[in-house]
Amino acid sequence: MRLSRWHAMNDDTRFGLNRHIILPGPLALDGGGELAPVEIAYETYGALNADASNAILICHALTMDQHVASAHPITGKPGWWASMVGPGKIIDTDRFCVICPNVIGGCMGSSGPETNAPDGKPWGMRFPVITIRDMVRAQALLLDHLGIGSLYAVIGGSMGGMLTLSWAATYPDRVASALIVASTARHSAQNIAFHEVGRQAIMADPDWRGGDYYADGKTPDAGLAVARMAAHITYMSEQGLTEKFGRQLQNREAKTFGFDADFQIESYLRHQGFSFTDRFDANSYLYITRAMDYWDLAEDHGGVLAHAFKGTNTRFCLVSFDTDWLYPTAESKAVVHALNAAGAAVSFVELASPFGHDAFLLDTPGLEGIIEGFVRAGGQ
Amino acid sequence: MRLSRWHAMNDDTRFGLNRHIILPGPLALDGGGELAPVEIAYETYGALNADASNAILICHALTMDQHVASAHPITGKPGWWASMVGPGKIIDTDRFCVICPNVIGGCMGSSGPETNAPDGKPWGMRFPVITIRDMVRAQALLLDHLGIGSLYAVIGGSMGGMLTLSWAATYPDRVASALIVASTARHSAQNIAFHEVGRQAIMADPDWRGGDYYADGKTPDAGLAVARMAAHITYMSEQGLTEKFGRQLQNREAKTFGFDADFQIESYLRHQGFSFTDRFDANSYLYITRAMDYWDLAEDHGGVLAHAFKGTNTRFCLVSFDTDWLYPTAESKAVVHALNAAGAAVSFVELASPFGHDAFLLDTPGLEGIIEGFVRAGGQ
Repeated sequence: MRLSRWHAMNDDTRFGLNRHIILPGPLALDGGGELAPVEIAYETYGALNADASNAILICHALTMDQHVASAHPITGKPGWWASMVGPGKIIDTDRFCVICPNVIGGCMGSSGPETNAPDGKPWGMRFPVITIRDMVRAQALLLDHLGIGSLYAVIGGSMGGMLTLSWAATYPDRVASALIVASTARHSAQNIAFHEVGRQAIMADPDWRGGDYYADGKTPDAGLAVARMAAHITYMSEQGLTEKFGRQLQNREAKTFGFDADFQIESYLRHQGFSFTDRFDANSYLYITRAMDYWDLAEDHGGVLAHAFKGTNTRFCLVSFDTDWLYPTAESKAVVHALNAAGAAVSFVELASPFGHDAFLLDTPGLEGIIEGFVRAGGQ
Repeated sequence: MRLSRWHAMNDDTRFGLNRHIILPGPLALDGGGELAPVEIAYETYGALNADASNAILICHALTMDQHVASAHPITGKPGWWASMVGPGKIIDTDRFCVICPNVIGGCMGSSGPETNAPDGKPWGMRFPVITIRDMVRAQALLLDHLGIGSLYAVIGGSMGGMLTLSWAATYPDRVASALIVASTARHSAQNIAFHEVGRQAIMADPDWRGGDYYADGKTPDAGLAVARMAAHITYMSEQGLTEKFGRQLQNREAKTFGFDADFQIESYLRHQGFSFTDRFDANSYLYITRAMDYWDLAEDHGGVLAHAFKGTNTRFCLVSFDTDWLYPTAESKAVVHALNAAGAAVSFVELASPFGHDAFLLDTPGLEGIIEGFVRAGGQ
C-alpha cells in the first residue's frame, strides 16, 4: 500500500515546490465528457522573468511525477532528473523557470482516481478515461494560471515525449522548441499488449474491488507489483540485463531447487514490483496506461503524422537509444520523417547505451551534451 | 479452471495413443532428492521396427504436451505438430515410430504437482523442483521400458530444444541425430525475468493457496491467465503483432474511452490467457518455468558449453528464426560454435519469419524442407 497520500497544500504563491492549484474548469475531454474541477500539483524551480520568456515545461513519464528535481515526498529519493535540472546544471534554474506538473490521471496530487470527485468521495473508476492531449490541455490551463503564454521549451522522455509532441501539435504557438527523448508518436500493438497484461494483473487482484479500495487502505498491491514487474522488463535491454545480472545467484552459492528468488534478476524484479506499490496508485496505473495506449498522434490528423505539424515554427530535437526496444529508434525516425515532410526544423540523434529505454533517466554518454545544446539554442 | 483432468488409462500395450506407464523408479533428481514412482503419459505413432532402429523422440515445449499429432483431449484441437507428423508427412509415421512423452512436472498425465504423491494426495508444491535433465532422464526410463536403445533422432522446439540438447549431452550414445529449433543452451536474465513475472502472477492469486487447490476445483485462473498473457507477448515479434493487429479496434468503430478490450491485441491476449487455464495447471507452470530458468547446459560442464558435446557422434541440426527475440539467433549460434569446438557434425540455418518464436509451430517457409532433409539423413 502507499505509504502516505498527498495532501493539498495552501497555494500561497504560484511558484515553488509543492504547489497545488484547483482550477474551476471545466476541461473538455477527448472522450466527450468534462472534468471539473481540475486539480494540478506541480513544482517550479527558478524564477520566471519579467516577460515570462524563460519557462521550460518538463513532462514526466508514466510512473514519474512532478518531483523532477526535488526529493520525492514518499521515497525521499532525489528528483528523477535532479542530475539535469538545478542551479548551474544543464537545465539551469538560475536562468530558466522550470515547471513540472503531475499529469491528470496521476496520483501525486493532480486530479485522478485517488482525488475526490465533486461528491466528496474518491473518483475511483468513475474518473473519466483521459488522453495524452487531455493531460496537455490541463497543463495549458496551469500555464494560463501562471501567466505563461509561450514556452521557451517543452521537454519530455517516454510518455513525457508523447506529451511534448502533443503540446507541439496542439499549441504550436506556445512551444518555441520541443525535446522528445525515447518516445513515439503512437503506441504499437506490442506496447498495448504489455500494458494490457499490467491492467489485467491489477484487475485480477481481489483487493482491486472495481477500483473502490480507498476507504480501508487495503490496496491491490500484488496486482500492481506484477504489472510493474512486467513493465520493468520492457525498460531494460536484454543486453543490459545480461551485463547487470546475467545468471548470477542472489546471496547464495548454489541453486536452492525451490521458488525463492535464486537469481539476482528475480530478486531485483520483486523489489521493483513491491517498492512501486509504496508510491503509486493502481487505478492511476490503469488510467495512464490507457491514455498511452490511445496515443496515436496521426489519428487526430487524418492518419498523416506530418499534418500534426503543418506550418509549425517549433524547433524539434529527438533522441533515441539503440537498445530501447520499448520505443525503438524507428519510432523516433518516423516522427523525424513527418517533421521533415512538414518542413519543420528538426535534429535527431540515436545514442548508444546498453540500458535500453531506461537510458533517458541514466547518465548516458552524449545525452547531457545534446540537452545542453538544445537548451542553449532553444527559444531562438 | 481446467475443463477436465487426465485419468490414467490401462497400459494394455506399450505403443499407441493415450499410453500411460508407472515406472517404479526411483529417479535420482538434480536437486538431490528422488522421484518415485515415475508416471509418464505418452503417445506413439507408427510401428517400431524389429531392431528398434526407427524411433524418433519428439520433445514438447513449455505449454505443449504429448499430443503432437493426435487431438488434444481437452480442447479437441489437432496435435500441435500434426502438420509435420503422420503417415506420409515430413516426419513419416509409416516409416518411423514417433514417441512423444509429457514431461515430468507437466499436467497431462506424467508425474507432476497434479498427480498423486505416494500418500495418495496430489503432490502440489510438495513435488520436487526438477530440471530439464531430470525430464530427460525420466524419458530415458520410458525408452528402456519401450525397448528402445538408440534413437534415430531427437527433435524439439523451444523447451523441447533444451531437452534435445540435454539428451545429446546426457546420452550421446543413444542419440544418432538431434534437431533443435528456436532454442537455447541457457536461459538469459530476460528469459528468467519474464518467467518470474508469470510465477509472481500465479502466486499472487489468492486461489493459488500455496499450490494446494486441487480438492475443491477452484484454481488460480486469474493469475495463470496473466502469466500466459505476459509469456505470449514474448512468443510473437513486434513486427508480427503490428502486421496481425496493429492498432485495429475489436468489433467497434471508435475507442470506447473505457477499460474494455478496445484493441484487437487486447481481446486476443485475454482470450489466450483465459483459454489457457482450461488446459493447463498453474503449479505445473511454476515447475516447468523453474526448470527452464535453471537450464544452463554449460554450467554442468565446467562452464564450457563445448565440453557438453566432447567426443559426440551425434549429428546436429539447429534452426532459428530471425524475429525470435525470446531465443534469438545468437543463442543458436552459441550452440553451433560449441559444437564446432567439440568437432561435432552440425548444420545451422536462420529462417526468415515475421512471427517470432511462434514460427516453429507455424507453416514457416523453409522449415519443412529442413526437417525433411534432417530426417532423411538422420540416423546415418
